[in-house]
Amino acid sequence: MTELQNTLGDFIELSQEEWSVFNHELIKKEFKGKSVLIREGSVANKLYIIESGLIRTYCLLDGKEVSTYFASDKQVISIFSSFISQNESFEILEAIEDCIVYELSYQSLLKLYKVSHKFERIGRILAEKSYLCTIDRTLAMQTKTAKQKYLEFLENYDRKIVQRVPQNQIASFLGIAPESLSRIRKEISIS
Amino acid sequence: MTELQNTLGDFIELSQEEWSVFNHELIKKEFKGKSVLIREGSVANKLYIIESGLIRTYCLLDGKEVSTYFASDKQVISIFSSFISQNESFEILEAIEDCIVYELSYQSLLKLYKVSHKFERIGRILAEKSYLCTIDRTLAMQTKTAKQKYLEFLENYDRKIVQRVPQNQIASFLGIAPESLSRIRKEISIS
Repeated sequence: MTELQNTLGDFIELSQEEWSVFNHELIKKEFKGKSVLIREGSVANKLYIIESGLIRTYCLLDGKEVSTYFASDKQVISIFSSFISQNESFEILEAIEDCIVYELSYQSLLKLYKVSHKFERIGRILAEKSYLCTIDRTLAMQTKTAKQKYLEFLENYDRKIVQRVPQNQIASFLGIAPESLSRIRKEISIS
Repeated sequence: MTELQNTLGDFIELSQEEWSVFNHELIKKEFKGKSVLIREGSVANKLYIIESGLIRTYCLLDGKEVSTYFASDKQVISIFSSFISQNESFEILEAIEDCIVYELSYQSLLKLYKVSHKFERIGRILAEKSYLCTIDRTLAMQTKTAKQKYLEFLENYDRKIVQRVPQNQIASFLGIAPESLSRIRKEISIS
């Protein structure tokens, strides 16, 4: 449990008893890189608290992979639209690298909401963060240049994500061509 | 208070005491059509529960108005990205028609979160709904034809919004040209 507290300590303030209740609902799992944890068309009934590794979500548009979110250590990931609504997912959740995660089911989260105000608060903050993240991305897509989008990505995303996510996945996430990303990266390293 | 309970009864289940606490934080206000309730560049520190009237949010892209959300009776509206983050808004919140609303401040909502688990739940559900709404809109923009988007709008939006929001505002919301919307509406009325 201490290990999980270290992983999540910044995000959640819980008493020892609440940690124990929370921990009881989690299942520690390991996944190999490239494993698909949630498939397109299935209902996302799990969320993942990442201890180590890299995970992304993506969707297929006209047969092309478009990355929609990246997460690494200490971060939480799921296909939130499907997880919240319990409707079929149009996205895929995939481990980019080998991962160790704590898995929390939708049913367990509903149970936790009833146990303590604090879990409901965590749920609210999680939904708010997901919302802000989506709004920021949509706005950037509509209003920013390719270079501005990449510079913002460097500023807002974890160093590990910036350094280790394949370039073509970052390009599709930013809605720019891989060649443009490559040119922008060269420009930045020169200046 | 009974009037507000009628307005919000479907959305919130509260005890008489909780209704009373909630009601204490609200200010009933009237706004004329075309009034701007939240300006671009200001922080949205109010949300509005609509008793009657129509309200929209929009942003300016290259000098053009792009509608981003519509709400009418019994619905809740704010510029949620600014309200949640308490950062400056890039959108504008405007009454389309004369409105009667209950105004709730950000500070009041934080106070309510501390009073009862149920208010925190309302905050969570509100954030989740806003998130799903944004995801749906973004996905529709990326993957649907103009006609599909308009048919979905008819299906998902309140009759009052569909009938009374000006056509150019609906067109910008759907990301289609006003002429295309006009053509689609003719096609539908014929078929």
